[in-house]
Amino acid sequence: MKIVVVGATGTMGKYLADAFEKDHEIIRVGSSGGDIQVDITSLESIENLFKQVGSFDALISTAGPSYVGPWRNLTDREFRKGLEGKLMGQINLVLVGQHYINPEGSFTLIAGALTTDPQRNFANAATANGAIEAFVRAAAIELESGIRINAISPTVIEDSPQYFPYFPGEVPVTMRELEYGFRKSIFGARTGQVITPR
Amino acid sequence: MKIVVVGATGTMGKYLADAFEKDHEIIRVGSSGGDIQVDITSLESIENLFKQVGSFDALISTAGPSYVGPWRNLTDREFRKGLEGKLMGQINLVLVGQHYINPEGSFTLIAGALTTDPQRNFANAATANGAIEAFVRAAAIELESGIRINAISPTVIEDSPQYFPYFPGEVPVTMRELEYGFRKSIFGARTGQVITPR
Ligand SMILES: NC(=O)c1ccc[n+]([C@@H]2O[C@H](COP(=O)([O-])OP(=O)(O)OC[C@H]3O[C@@H](n4cnc5c(N)ncnc54)[C@H](OP(=O)(O)O)[C@@H]3O)[C@@H](O)[C@H]2O)c1
Ligand SMILES: NC(=O)c1ccc[n+]([C@@H]2O[C@H](COP(=O)([O-])OP(=O)(O)OC[C@H]3O[C@@H](n4cnc5c(N)ncnc54)[C@H](OP(=O)(O)O)[C@@H]3O)[C@@H](O)[C@H]2O)c1
Repeated sequence: MKIVVVGATGTMGKYLADAFEKDHEIIRVGSSGGDIQVDITSLESIENLFKQVGSFDALISTAGPSYVGPWRNLTDREFRKGLEGKLMGQINLVLVGQHYINPEGSFTLIAGALTTDPQRNFANAATANGAIEAFVRAAAIELESGIRINAISPTVIEDSPQYFPYFPGEVPVTMRELEYGFRKSIFGARTGQVITPR
Repeated sequence: MKIVVVGATGTMGKYLADAFEKDHEIIRVGSSGGDIQVDITSLESIENLFKQVGSFDALISTAGPSYVGPWRNLTDREFRKGLEGKLMGQINLVLVGQHYINPEGSFTLIAGALTTDPQRNFANAATANGAIEAFVRAAAIELESGIRINAISPTVIEDSPQYFPYFPGEVPVTMRELEYGFRKSIFGARTGQVITPR
């Protein structure tokens, strides 16, 4: 399979790209590093990405910038970070990418447990997550040619200890559990689902 | 109570404003009609709204414009309608309105059953709904002074027969059930909840 990993230079994306590289052709996409660069907040940049990638079998996104910080500083301006990034950026990967993906291909987007288990400082990411989870359910009944779409919604992951203090009482998801969550979406038959790794 | 109804000139908002008017002071807000006008897609317009309203006890929003139409026509441009309207518009009502609302006041936003029960043509509204539902859960743990926030998430309502063909098999929610859903949020003690009328 030809698998496009958007966010391949980040914590999740690098692990996943390395894991799938043994058996698949991986296109690593980052905002500055990787094989190809994209800024998912720019529609034009996303269009350029797919022109370079051409046809592919699966796209996974672990690129989801959002505002993290005190509620009192959260105004329209900060909120735009997650709105243009994690939310619209990922949705545009699908709206544009659907014209390049092979029949029976799959999209797997990143959400997160904040959708239903909120934590302080993360209202922007929580909102984007809820949007992405609803979007994959809605897109699954619209996409044609057997194209599938799911979201992965993990709690904090073991390789991001910098976030542990913000997630009291959350047992971190292991990288292997995260990988297996993505495996269910890419290599299984499900669509329109929110997959909680573990 | 002084209750601000944003969307008061629409199907839901008019019914709710009439229902609550017997016992409460109602400020009817619409995009063209009503006591005060606002365009919720404009931050400046929302700031002007609250300057005119002053302090209040409850805000309910039934203003949630989104793109409804065929998936094949859904690009970044159409998606912005729900993003700026139902999603960011309602969130900005809270981010700005929190500085005007009285202690122990409440915000009640509109979502919809599409969050989990998608229908064709409504991917944009479904996405906005999911965002709003996650936002109220996240905002509830951040808002101070006992301010509460909930979302109402009905399926198609009985006074909108024009939508029935798009919602096969959905038993419409009665206007009275809708009103009682809002009553739970405004007059009850709950916060951070998604209320499904019926
Ligand atoms: N880490 C966790 O514990 C955790 C748990 C649940 C959910 N999540 C979610 O998972 C996602 C990824 O997390 P992570 O920890 O792997 O993040 P990360 O280490 O910060 O990596 C983010 C990746 O996204 C790319 N990126 C950022 N902004 C971009 C843009 N505008 N356009 C294109 N690419 C962009 C980065 O590229 P460059 O490096 O080139 O800038 C990088 O490859 C986030 O949405 C996060 O909310 C994380
Ligand atoms: N109807 C249903 O069956 C149903 C079911 C579930 C969820 N919902 C959701 O409930 C919400 C309201 O539905 P409805 O049927 O009552 O809609 P509606 O009859 O179209 O009324 C919409 C209201 O919002 C106002 N509005 C529209 N755009 C605005 C803007 N940019 N700024 C400020 N106000 C604006 C309108 O004002 P003007 O009239 O002055 O333009 C009107 O008062 C929608 O978000 C819809 O998705 C509806």
